[in-house]
Amino acid sequence: MNAGEVTQKLFDAKKKKGKTFSDLGKIIDRDEVWIASLFYGQARASEEEAARLGSALGLEKDLCDRLTEFPTKGLGPLVPTDPLIYRFYEIMQVYGMPMKSVIHEKFGDGIMSAIDFTLTIDKEIDPKGDRVVVTMNGKFLPYKKW
Amino acid sequence: MNAGEVTQKLFDAKKKKGKTFSDLGKIIDRDEVWIASLFYGQARASEEEAARLGSALGLEKDLCDRLTEFPTKGLGPLVPTDPLIYRFYEIMQVYGMPMKSVIHEKFGDGIMSAIDFTLTIDKEIDPKGDRVVVTMNGKFLPYKKW
Amino acid sequence: MNAGEVTQKLFDAKKKKGKTFSDLGKIIDRDEVWIASLFYGQARASEEEAARLGSALGLEKDLCDRLTEFPTKGLGPLVPTDPLIYRFYEIMQVYGMPMKSVIHEKFGDGIMSAIDFTLTIDKEIDPKGDRVVVTMNGKFLPYKKW
Amino acid sequence: MNAGEVTQKLFDAKKKKGKTFSDLGKIIDRDEVWIASLFYGQARASEEEAARLGSALGLEKDLCDRLTEFPTKGLGPLVPTDPLIYRFYEIMQVYGMPMKSVIHEKFGDGIMSAIDFTLTIDKEIDPKGDRVVVTMNGKFLPYKKW
Amino acid sequence: MNAGEVTQKLFDAKKKKGKTFSDLGKIIDRDEVWIASLFYGQARASEEEAARLGSALGLEKDLCDRLTEFPTKGLGPLVPTDPLIYRFYEIMQVYGMPMKSVIHEKFGDGIMSAIDFTLTIDKEIDPKGDRVVVTMNGKFLPYKKW
Amino acid sequence: MNAGEVTQKLFDAKKKKGKTFSDLGKIIDRDEVWIASLFYGQARASEEEAARLGSALGLEKDLCDRLTEFPTKGLGPLVPTDPLIYRFYEIMQVYGMPMKSVIHEKFGDGIMSAIDFTLTIDKEIDPKGDRVVVTMNGKFLPYKKW
Amino acid sequence: MNAGEVTQKLFDAKKKKGKTFSDLGKIIDRDEVWIASLFYGQARASEEEAARLGSALGLEKDLCDRLTEFPTKGLGPLVPTDPLIYRFYEIMQVYGMPMKSVIHEKFGDGIMSAIDFTLTIDKEIDPKGDRVVVTMNGKFLPYKKW
Amino acid sequence: MNAGEVTQKLFDAKKKKGKTFSDLGKIIDRDEVWIASLFYGQARASEEEAARLGSALGLEKDLCDRLTEFPTKGLGPLVPTDPLIYRFYEIMQVYGMPMKSVIHEKFGDGIMSAIDFTLTIDKEIDPKGDRVVVTMNGKFLPYKKW
Amino acid sequence: MNAGEVTQKLFDAKKKKGKTFSDLGKIIDRDEVWIASLFYGQARASEEEAARLGSALGLEKDLCDRLTEFPTKGLGPLVPTDPLIYRFYEIMQVYGMPMKSVIHEKFGDGIMSAIDFTLTIDKEIDPKGDRVVVTMNGKFLPYKKW
Amino acid sequence: MNAGEVTQKLFDAKKKKGKTFSDLGKIIDRDEVWIASLFYGQARASEEEAARLGSALGLEKDLCDRLTEFPTKGLGPLVPTDPLIYRFYEIMQVYGMPMKSVIHEKFGDGIMSAIDFTLTIDKEIDPKGDRVVVTMNGKFLPYKKW
Repeated sequence: MNAGEVTQKLFDAKKKKGKTFSDLGKIIDRDEVWIASLFYGQARASEEEAARLGSALGLEKDLCDRLTEFPTKGLGPLVPTDPLIYRFYEIMQVYGMPMKSVIHEKFGDGIMSAIDFTLTIDKEIDPKGDRVVVTMNGKFLPYKKW
Repeated sequence: MNAGEVTQKLFDAKKKKGKTFSDLGKIIDRDEVWIASLFYGQARASEEEAARLGSALGLEKDLCDRLTEFPTKGLGPLVPTDPLIYRFYEIMQVYGMPMKSVIHEKFGDGIMSAIDFTLTIDKEIDPKGDRVVVTMNGKFLPYKKW
Repeated sequence: MNAGEVTQKLFDAKKKKGKTFSDLGKIIDRDEVWIASLFYGQARASEEEAARLGSALGLEKDLCDRLTEFPTKGLGPLVPTDPLIYRFYEIMQVYGMPMKSVIHEKFGDGIMSAIDFTLTIDKEIDPKGDRVVVTMNGKFLPYKKW
Repeated sequence: MNAGEVTQKLFDAKKKKGKTFSDLGKIIDRDEVWIASLFYGQARASEEEAARLGSALGLEKDLCDRLTEFPTKGLGPLVPTDPLIYRFYEIMQVYGMPMKSVIHEKFGDGIMSAIDFTLTIDKEIDPKGDRVVVTMNGKFLPYKKW
Repeated sequence: MNAGEVTQKLFDAKKKKGKTFSDLGKIIDRDEVWIASLFYGQARASEEEAARLGSALGLEKDLCDRLTEFPTKGLGPLVPTDPLIYRFYEIMQVYGMPMKSVIHEKFGDGIMSAIDFTLTIDKEIDPKGDRVVVTMNGKFLPYKKW
Repeated sequence: MNAGEVTQKLFDAKKKKGKTFSDLGKIIDRDEVWIASLFYGQARASEEEAARLGSALGLEKDLCDRLTEFPTKGLGPLVPTDPLIYRFYEIMQVYGMPMKSVIHEKFGDGIMSAIDFTLTIDKEIDPKGDRVVVTMNGKFLPYKKW
Repeated sequence: MNAGEVTQKLFDAKKKKGKTFSDLGKIIDRDEVWIASLFYGQARASEEEAARLGSALGLEKDLCDRLTEFPTKGLGPLVPTDPLIYRFYEIMQVYGMPMKSVIHEKFGDGIMSAIDFTLTIDKEIDPKGDRVVVTMNGKFLPYKKW
Repeated sequence: MNAGEVTQKLFDAKKKKGKTFSDLGKIIDRDEVWIASLFYGQARASEEEAARLGSALGLEKDLCDRLTEFPTKGLGPLVPTDPLIYRFYEIMQVYGMPMKSVIHEKFGDGIMSAIDFTLTIDKEIDPKGDRVVVTMNGKFLPYKKW
Repeated sequence: MNAGEVTQKLFDAKKKKGKTFSDLGKIIDRDEVWIASLFYGQARASEEEAARLGSALGLEKDLCDRLTEFPTKGLGPLVPTDPLIYRFYEIMQVYGMPMKSVIHEKFGDGIMSAIDFTLTIDKEIDPKGDRVVVTMNGKFLPYKKW
Repeated sequence: MNAGEVTQKLFDAKKKKGKTFSDLGKIIDRDEVWIASLFYGQARASEEEAARLGSALGLEKDLCDRLTEFPTKGLGPLVPTDPLIYRFYEIMQVYGMPMKSVIHEKFGDGIMSAIDFTLTIDKEIDPKGDRVVVTMNGKFLPYKKW
């Protein structure tokens, strides 16, 4: 069972049980985006988390086990072709240098961690069209000198 | 004067005047990230905005004019090598599909606009290490059927 | 059943039933290009649209269900090798900057949406050789300043 | 004087004279998109057209001469990073195969010419947001058998 | 049955029947290169041509049907690694610009069509080593102005 | 003086003298395509050929000398964007494998040389549109076994 | 049976029979490197050679037949990742231009053929560490002028 | 003075003095290929070697100094386009795996060093066409286990 | 059984037996990183080592045999997307030239061998967060002159 | 003055003053590799550090200022061609997955930081050939769950 098949089975189980990512998140006290990351093999559950999700979704034992493995992460293609994902690539292309300048001005030389990091997605109701609000929160890591 | 030289001259003027991006933003009532985008040729000022910034930074006329042109946007290299910018690429690689799933679940088929879009950067003080908070706010655009 | 197999089965059913894309479009009041997009997993049908198409094409239940999923869009290869598709890539290469200039001159800074967007293909009879007329119609999205 | 410099000088002259692409097009009875293509070295003017445009824009002789050369066409980067131009790349990625299917169904095996081809851009006023209408008109070229 | 398998089966049948491409071409009055293109899914036969070839090669019905489909053309890899095919890539690299100059000088601005196009291969006997003669014959398509 | 500048100067001299490639070819008894190859630094003249061409074109000594150097050949970009040159790339993509099969069938295992090779371009007058005829003639080189 | 499977089966047979490439070479009077090339589908045996090798290795008929086909050659990845093979890529990167200069100085404008070509590998015993000696021997092909 | 300019000046001096690489090699008791490597910034001379070559070629002091620097090696483009250099790339593509197999069979797991390595080029006179003989001699480095 | 399947089976056996890489290393007196390299097909065991590991992990005979083969090494993708592995790519991007300068200053012209090479990973306990210590130890190989 | 020119001037000053990286490191109490990183624009000095280095190297004011800027980091080319730097790429290719496995086994899910990170290079004298010892020391960053 390869990584794509694991993902597919998880989505099938989720659909069958009629759960949202948010429903699943509540079961183990995690955010919906983190749950979706787990589905795509981009995060790793503890044995207990895997057991609780497995129970809620009716997963077989070996599928549960896969949730606790260390995944090889990343999408693969250098430039994504899916329009929704591409927009995040475009934001990095267009606003990458500006963000770098503002972060350096505010924090000094270093980076925003993508590991000690959380990401949430909210829906902002707006009569002119609802808005997607993505909030990234990462620890600032100053470059060490030695 | 190519795009890189325009950027360099703007940074030189900013340094000489001792202004932060935030200071400049207040002059024309814009966010600091937007100002930095303008410096990198990723945004376009109105004639009035350009005049006010030009006055605050002591810019020459033709440099002011460049701020009002339609820029060719984007960084260029497919995969960025600068560690700070790369982290945003990594976020897209690792969390792209999870974000796609959650956005589709909450909003339906469509994308988050990167045009009708704002991006702000805040500093969250934390004794274990300050945190960078990036907030992206984009209009949801549903796919049109025809 | 992967995405390519879904496409193949849809084409087989269409051939067997002797329908054109236009015939199928009339059943659910959609354009022929949109129907072809659905066949290639680039669009998403509502449950009702899927049911009606499924009935007209004699599709099995799980194939119908696939029409209602959120697809990962895009062809994949960076530069297409098929001559017909390449011509659209060539048009973007040759006329991309000119179109950008004219759109900016007429509309200001922003883009033509590829989401709030329709695309139709017409046949123009011409004694010197029939002509393909592709009409793209996308909402202009002005860049937000913040 | 390289190709980029020729383009820059033409834009400077156009700005100084306060002409739109449409104004220039009327002088030599050509479409505004074609004029913009000429500015970007993607098209070639006759000696007479170059002379008339040169006179309207106050161009020097050698700049006029450049308008009559055979250009090496194309933007260069495999995947464009400018958001406006990228949308046309995305359209090719998302709608390429659907267009291929519909064109084959309507015309048989062959392609839409990108040479015996015209492209116009219109503005459609719409209270919900103006729309960009791009019309491509290319001769259908059937594959020759031999 | 994917495209590679179709090709393989056609070659097997050809070998079993002991036919050359030239033999097969005579059956439907086509050139040997065109027949080979058909084997590789780069061309499309009419129903009658497919039937005649199918009969000569003893092909099953569904294999015959595949010969009449609209293929997705092109080899795939950006730079071919097979030495024989690479030589044509090298010719394009080395003689591309010279050919462009001579064609423009003789015909004006435009291209040689690769669609309204034939290609034949002849063997020129030479005591110092036989020679391959490739003749390409494509319609000149002048760039349309509009 | 880099390679591009050498080419530009040669074209300027040719224009000034009002010569075609064919005219220049007659001076040293070479084909027009070979002359164009020399202009683009893809071929190498003998000292005498360089002197004769230099005299006809009014070239300075060091420009003449450059014609006798061993050039680093090739255009550079992996996939050409100029439509005329791209068509030769497309021919390699679409007809590469068919040509390989026919050449192997007629000659055995080996390649067509791109070194012991000539290439000519002829104009075939045709009331339905003139045709470009490209004739490539390369020695067949059988693979050596050892 | 794809190309990789043919290779795997040949290696299995070789291992089972306990033969070296050199042993196999002696059977048909060919060099060990050529035999290894045949195993990897980079060379083509005559019917008789295939029969003799098949007999020595106990190969089935259809495996023998595969040795006589015209292979599509080349490894595939643009830059090899295997350290042993990469060293040959590195040699080309580091010593390519120097070799070009020396060959041009000694032979004139042309290339070393990779077709009329042999390659042998010898082991040179050396107390400081044995040495690999690779000898390439290719016909010089002068560029033809025409 | 960048690396390309250093190379150009060295070639100019060599031409002016009428020396071959072999002549220069004799001056400092090095092979002609090594001298050419030095010209291309792929090797590094000792101070004494640089002085002797500088004297023979009439080089200025700072040009001599450049010969003693640690160069950043490698040609750059992933796939070379120059036909002569490409042949070495092709040899790696076609014969890479066969060489790997033979070297492993003869030496065990490890590589041929490209550092403790020499490369010579000889001319083998042959009435059917002279031959280029390239001899690579590299230390075998066994993989260390730990 | 392809390389990925061999790796998967080895990990399954390791998990079932509850062994760490370090445990396995002790059985054959090798470092844990070397053992992991063997699992990923990047190293090669002797027959005796394979037998001992096979016995400890309960491997079948043909799986044991695979451990003694000469592997084709390397991960494949040019730029890794997994964040942990990417950091090593980033280190090479950011510190590659500085390391080169320091190594040249200390050792002269040459490289650090990646073949006569060991790599160990230690855990350094630190109250502010444990640290990963990677120690690479490779023989310096001076460039040979000839 | 672009980044490459800054680097070149720093190296010239270092050579003129006859300092090693280690000498310079002692002046501001930093490691030699960090100093080399600063020379290549991969690190950033404080104003005081820049002043002291500037004094020791006799740098002009604006060169000193460049040492305190936030650099855009990274080498650029996806795959390095310099043999010394390539070895680190090769180590990542060959040992990347094994390192990932061992780090996960010892530390859990997370990465080794390349920011809170030091790198030193030592020379280990060895009669069989000196050895380069590279020690990387990076904080382990566990993936945050949310």
